[in-house]
Amino acid sequence: MDLYSGHINKLIEELAALPGIGSKSAQRLAFHLINMPQDKVNRLANVMMEAKANVRYCSECYTLTDREICPVCANVKRNHGMIMVVENTRDLAAYEKTGKYEGVYHVLHGAISPMLGIGPSDIKLKELIERLEGDVEEVIIATNSSLEGETTAMYISKLIKPTGVRVTRIASGVPVGGDLEYIDEVTLLRALEGRTEL
Amino acid sequence: MDLYSGHINKLIEELAALPGIGSKSAQRLAFHLINMPQDKVNRLANVMMEAKANVRYCSECYTLTDREICPVCANVKRNHGMIMVVENTRDLAAYEKTGKYEGVYHVLHGAISPMLGIGPSDIKLKELIERLEGDVEEVIIATNSSLEGETTAMYISKLIKPTGVRVTRIASGVPVGGDLEYIDEVTLLRALEGRTEL
Repeated sequence: MDLYSGHINKLIEELAALPGIGSKSAQRLAFHLINMPQDKVNRLANVMMEAKANVRYCSECYTLTDREICPVCANVKRNHGMIMVVENTRDLAAYEKTGKYEGVYHVLHGAISPMLGIGPSDIKLKELIERLEGDVEEVIIATNSSLEGETTAMYISKLIKPTGVRVTRIASGVPVGGDLEYIDEVTLLRALEGRTEL
Repeated sequence: MDLYSGHINKLIEELAALPGIGSKSAQRLAFHLINMPQDKVNRLANVMMEAKANVRYCSECYTLTDREICPVCANVKRNHGMIMVVENTRDLAAYEKTGKYEGVYHVLHGAISPMLGIGPSDIKLKELIERLEGDVEEVIIATNSSLEGETTAMYISKLIKPTGVRVTRIASGVPVGGDLEYIDEVTLLRALEGRTEL
């Protein structure tokens, strides 16, 4: 139905194609954009195009950055012998926000998923193995605690162990502040298995 | 914290300023945009700028359109003597989707809200009154069933009644398929007051 006429429909359609934006949100966003001053809309549009044009992979850890080497890898104070493997740049950011991790990262850009047809060669795994030729002491696998994340963790661990580099996995269990009553059984069992001495 | 470096941070910031997009969604969207092909990003950016540049108010009903007269007002088959007053273009679209309303609309672009300092002169009310000089039989007030919407409905009704034009208000009550148990008391009382003969 041609409710809004061409330009608005096209904008709603483009916005609705973005992840997490349904048709209602797309409508609301579209009308918000149309009511914004033209210069602000132009600025947003330009920021989008520029980000896309300028952002690339860090040549060491493959996180998204607009430099040749990302700020973490470029920091000589970080421990470059400790590599945390994450699925994507947002996960890297989540650990960076803790401000407590001193090592560097490796961003896989995905996880192995036979269901979705994503194999080891579709993520930045070869690149991780290449990095191990340097002076690496430990690889901390921080893929998600999902089926894909666990599969990927197992795969990486089997791949790296023969090289003699220490491979660890971040703990999974009850989230801090979590109420046991509301936590799923798998997590509860995982927390039990992973119990530590007090 | 300079987690992602300039271009990404700027993009996340711009996206998070949009309505209904929190910082987490803004991050997700930003990375999605960066992973999209450049031509698709450019297309989205251009669609945004073009929509903003080309969309204006319909010179009759003040809905957003990219023509001088919107498709509804331009349709001679619609009943131009029946005007439904709505708060915004999305509300117009909601009624258009029913496909059952034969009249035309008037879009106020807001509602009277003393709390927010929005008075009668801040919405397209003068424009509505001007339209009554034509051949109008009925004004159906379809502002929201909120405090602001009700205030606006009362105000418009008092303004129009002296002109002799029929003024009606859409019914408010229990939504179709709504379970009484989960419906607030005010709505339940409103539904009771508005009961009709069977």
